Amino acid sequence: MTTGTQADLYSVMHDRKSVRVYDPAATISKEELSEMIKEATSAPSSSNLQPWRFLVIQDTAVKKELRAIANNQEQAETASAVIAVLGDIEMYKKVEQIYTQNVTEGHMPEASKEAMIASTNRVYPNVSDEVRKNIATFDAGLISMQIMLIAKEKGYDTVPMGGFDKEKFAERFELPSNVVPIVLIAVGKAAGPAYGSSRLPMNEILKFI
Amino acid sequence: MTTGTQADLYSVMHDRKSVRVYDPAATISKEELSEMIKEATSAPSSSNLQPWRFLVIQDTAVKKELRAIANNQEQAETASAVIAVLGDIEMYKKVEQIYTQNVTEGHMPEASKEAMIASTNRVYPNVSDEVRKNIATFDAGLISMQIMLIAKEKGYDTVPMGGFDKEKFAERFELPSNVVPIVLIAVGKAAGPAYGSSRLPMNEILKFI
Repeated sequence: MTTGTQADLYSVMHDRKSVRVYDPAATISKEELSEMIKEATSAPSSSNLQPWRFLVIQDTAVKKELRAIANNQEQAETASAVIAVLGDIEMYKKVEQIYTQNVTEGHMPEASKEAMIASTNRVYPNVSDEVRKNIATFDAGLISMQIMLIAKEKGYDTVPMGGFDKEKFAERFELPSNVVPIVLIAVGKAAGPAYGSSRLPMNEILKFI
Repeated sequence: MTTGTQADLYSVMHDRKSVRVYDPAATISKEELSEMIKEATSAPSSSNLQPWRFLVIQDTAVKKELRAIANNQEQAETASAVIAVLGDIEMYKKVEQIYTQNVTEGHMPEASKEAMIASTNRVYPNVSDEVRKNIATFDAGLISMQIMLIAKEKGYDTVPMGGFDKEKFAERFELPSNVVPIVLIAVGKAAGPAYGSSRLPMNEILKFI
């Protein structure tokens, strides 16, 4: 059940299915894409460090290049846009900025800010790149889910693509060494039906203690 | 805007905030927790392999142990339940089962099934454990976001906890070597206000091409 223009959570979750066939003539404005991503940033992240970065590719010629980098998956070229979700594995370097803003916006007292900065600077620089990459990857999953739900609510379809040449991507788009590509999300107007997919029975994935 | 008992997507997204203070007397039934997790499995996953596994901890004494494993974070003990989200890094071993079910349920023809099984068995066993852990971690992020939104819609609050002793957790709960702990999600009835948190300006996280 929905009212006005907004759909309820469960309908959006149920209706969201991975779509691989898009109308190549459909476009989505930069403004709408920005708005979608901004909405999605309400997702939580480890110590609120927000390691997610986004490179949104709309240019036709660049999408063609991207298709070659993404195992020739058609949707990399035919979707209206591809949102490359990247992770900053030096996310802790923004801790002062983020917690200063938290105080300015009235979310926490100065003492909490200092404690959070101290604990972040004690932990994050001293774990391996791999651990920080895992943190960024998990947080990227959180925000990617919100992006796909928001896109669906707005009448678009999506598909997340993990299978692409991450080295070539980083090289082609000149990512700095602290930024790793995590997933590509194709977003556009579906040009064919969305297929369902099976789910494992609950007793194979869930236990209680 | 909402109708009936279901809240719209954006309200749920905006209202979901990490909560760390819970009513220790509040309980959530196994049935409701199962239902929440089942709803959340509509999330997509890499090759639909659904690497997520869940250990839900409700027992008071075990939650006390969990608090010690989770850097003494109070909510590990006081939340009604802690959903441990785990990742199966041998997720490809269920590929036959999953794709057979896809055919049985009418989602795809037999030929697509065979192609997907072949490509999964070509790729997944031949990448490193670390790559498969990254895949499981990203997919865990996707489903964790849905779990937290669903919990909010049902009137509960949550907080994801990445900071815990993963080795001790694996040991205490006797995880098999192919299953890695990824995140703990505390879920319960808030016993204090949820605080907001700042977000980075869009021009620091988003670029267009």
